[in-house]
Amino acid sequence: QNTLLSGIGTTVFTVMSALAQKHGAINLGQGFPDHDGPEDVVRAAADALLDGRNQYPPMPGVPELRRAVAHHNRRFYGIEADPDAEVVVTSGATEAVTACLMAVLDPGDECALIEPLYDTYLPVVKLLGAVPKLVRLQPPKWELPRAELAAAFGPRTKAVLLNSPMNPTGKVFTAAELAFLADLVARHDCYAVCDEVYEHLTFDGWRHIPLMTLPGMRERCMRIGSAGKTFSLTGWKVGYVTCDRSLAPNVAKAHQNLTFTTPPNLQRGVAVGLMKDDAYFAGISEALGAKRDLLAAGLAELGFGVLPTQGSYFVTADFRPIGFTGDDVAFCRALTEEAGVTAIPVTAFYADPATAPNHYARFAFCKGDEVLRAALGRMRGWI
Amino acid sequence: QNTLLSGIGTTVFTVMSALAQKHGAINLGQGFPDHDGPEDVVRAAADALLDGRNQYPPMPGVPELRRAVAHHNRRFYGIEADPDAEVVVTSGATEAVTACLMAVLDPGDECALIEPLYDTYLPVVKLLGAVPKLVRLQPPKWELPRAELAAAFGPRTKAVLLNSPMNPTGKVFTAAELAFLADLVARHDCYAVCDEVYEHLTFDGWRHIPLMTLPGMRERCMRIGSAGKTFSLTGWKVGYVTCDRSLAPNVAKAHQNLTFTTPPNLQRGVAVGLMKDDAYFAGISEALGAKRDLLAAGLAELGFGVLPTQGSYFVTADFRPIGFTGDDVAFCRALTEEAGVTAIPVTAFYADPATAPNHYARFAFCKGDEVLRAALGRMRGWI
Ligand SMILES: CSCCC(=O)C(=O)O
Ligand SMILES: CSCCC(=O)C(=O)O
Repeated sequence: QNTLLSGIGTTVFTVMSALAQKHGAINLGQGFPDHDGPEDVVRAAADALLDGRNQYPPMPGVPELRRAVAHHNRRFYGIEADPDAEVVVTSGATEAVTACLMAVLDPGDECALIEPLYDTYLPVVKLLGAVPKLVRLQPPKWELPRAELAAAFGPRTKAVLLNSPMNPTGKVFTAAELAFLADLVARHDCYAVCDEVYEHLTFDGWRHIPLMTLPGMRERCMRIGSAGKTFSLTGWKVGYVTCDRSLAPNVAKAHQNLTFTTPPNLQRGVAVGLMKDDAYFAGISEALGAKRDLLAAGLAELGFGVLPTQGSYFVTADFRPIGFTGDDVAFCRALTEEAGVTAIPVTAFYADPATAPNHYARFAFCKGDEVLRAALGRMRGWI
Repeated sequence: QNTLLSGIGTTVFTVMSALAQKHGAINLGQGFPDHDGPEDVVRAAADALLDGRNQYPPMPGVPELRRAVAHHNRRFYGIEADPDAEVVVTSGATEAVTACLMAVLDPGDECALIEPLYDTYLPVVKLLGAVPKLVRLQPPKWELPRAELAAAFGPRTKAVLLNSPMNPTGKVFTAAELAFLADLVARHDCYAVCDEVYEHLTFDGWRHIPLMTLPGMRERCMRIGSAGKTFSLTGWKVGYVTCDRSLAPNVAKAHQNLTFTTPPNLQRGVAVGLMKDDAYFAGISEALGAKRDLLAAGLAELGFGVLPTQGSYFVTADFRPIGFTGDDVAFCRALTEEAGVTAIPVTAFYADPATAPNHYARFAFCKGDEVLRAALGRMRGWI
């Protein structure tokens, strides 16, 4: 059997969700909302099942969704993209990340990655025979260590993977950080895979800036969005890549070998979603921001050292101030089993957990207010 | 960019479907039915969108579908599989094939493949850094050349990929051929990835036999089925792998890095499908067999050298007898542009088209009778 896969575990999100279920814990681990997204989007997808279009859609996506993705890029970021040649629909952002990496990496190529990182990035880079170069953001501020990032780029660098707004840190990369990164990408003549699934989920006036909008970056970036996060329909697994016409064919050919196509009815539902009015998009960040406030304030009140969150579904908290002396895995296990609340240990987002900061847990706040309050109540009782 | 992907084309199915559309041709190329599958299955999937279960389902699949897959295995083949530990749902059979290959192959491992072959097999084996060993079936009988197959296995063989019923040949492997292959798999202590998406689409009393049911094969086979082909819903992209509990974790971990999950509402629809009564499954092969008869007889009457088809969506025909002197690519282009009918050149199913038999075209008969008759009429006019 494959050595790399044999050596990794089932994803921490699945493991912790199973543990939550086993112990009847409130699941603030795996990042999914507990309330399905807009009814018109769901209704459109249901209607689309019933009109006789259930055979293979075009391999790069149904035209109405590709047009909607192009429209969305123009509306929010001023990015002009040809829906027929610069958009590829995928079966979720996970497939999109894998397809983009596959599109550009050859065995032996180097790929820069920023820790803490989402747990598919590293195995996929390795399965493709490429060599990861890891750079760590330092808590509690998660600032980008510029010298180290520059040192991660070299003559064999083919790509960098950027996740902003970032999971699990909640960091939104600043214009200055992005400019520094863009300069490295241009100087090393390489590509950037940009996982931007939390693009609309930013708070306190923080605005997501696609790396693609920086000078010289239009041809080098593969920008990934996701219906799961933007429309609170994480099960649909509809993602979309926007990239230059010189890159899109390879992304599409990767997609063709990974899944070939994505269910047409769900694509058509998502097309309706991306055409929703500005109020929808403003509304989701406002609503989610209030939930972040609720959870962050509640955790702070309980004594946690709560780190700032500028975007995403997640808040990260240092549990040492409440007096817990074990590591993050022990904390998350105890929290699930004893308090009845599930969170994710942040070391799970590092290639080498043994050297990673091990006093943080990640809590998802994309849940009903009453669920968040109940979780805080259980934690209060436990502490 | 990735060298291998840069060097291959967009899949022939997409290319020929686009060409068909451009010329208003009747599309007997890409294999998809022109009529959507059972209404109760579609209705179940539509209803499932509306009951608030649109978030991530369990990574290996929703329990009702995993149970239905296990039930289906028992009912048709006497295969006992634990739905909780031996079934993995994927986003279509393409992802299933990629995940199964990824689950077992390490870079440098050898993988035996049988030509003509489906066009994702070879790129995926190579992208994983493994070494393909190709064996060719010889037309017109597509018999398995046993000595050559045996020679393709060696000390570094990790897997063989078997597609039965087979695309594009329509061949159903015999019990004797499967026994020969099983012996090789056992003696070389390797795995078999079994793409069995046409399992229910066999004719004239031919019965699909899963390699997994042969002695010693239960632990070595990854058996792949597909809702697309079994329920005439090719756009849904719901596949399922049945394999031993020692293999399933790696298949699931591959899936977790490729797509992570598959839309829950479509999974729940497919679960309804797999529980349908025996009459449904008998009915689809009977109905499709009649279509094969219609198309095969019509092509023979027009003068084509029609090869026998025991299963699948496809009939293969030698066009030399009608007086066409170019190769199969020229034939398929002329047929599309001049006759208004699209077929697939069989050389597209070979690693090296230059040395492949180049006088066959593949026609899909999974279409309305009136569509097949119209296609035959157009071809009659052209000839
Ligand atoms: C794909 S399961 C994990 C969902 C998610 O993005 C997260 O929890 O980090
Ligand atoms: C995935 S598109 C091709 C469909 C098919 O199986 C075929 O035409 O061979």
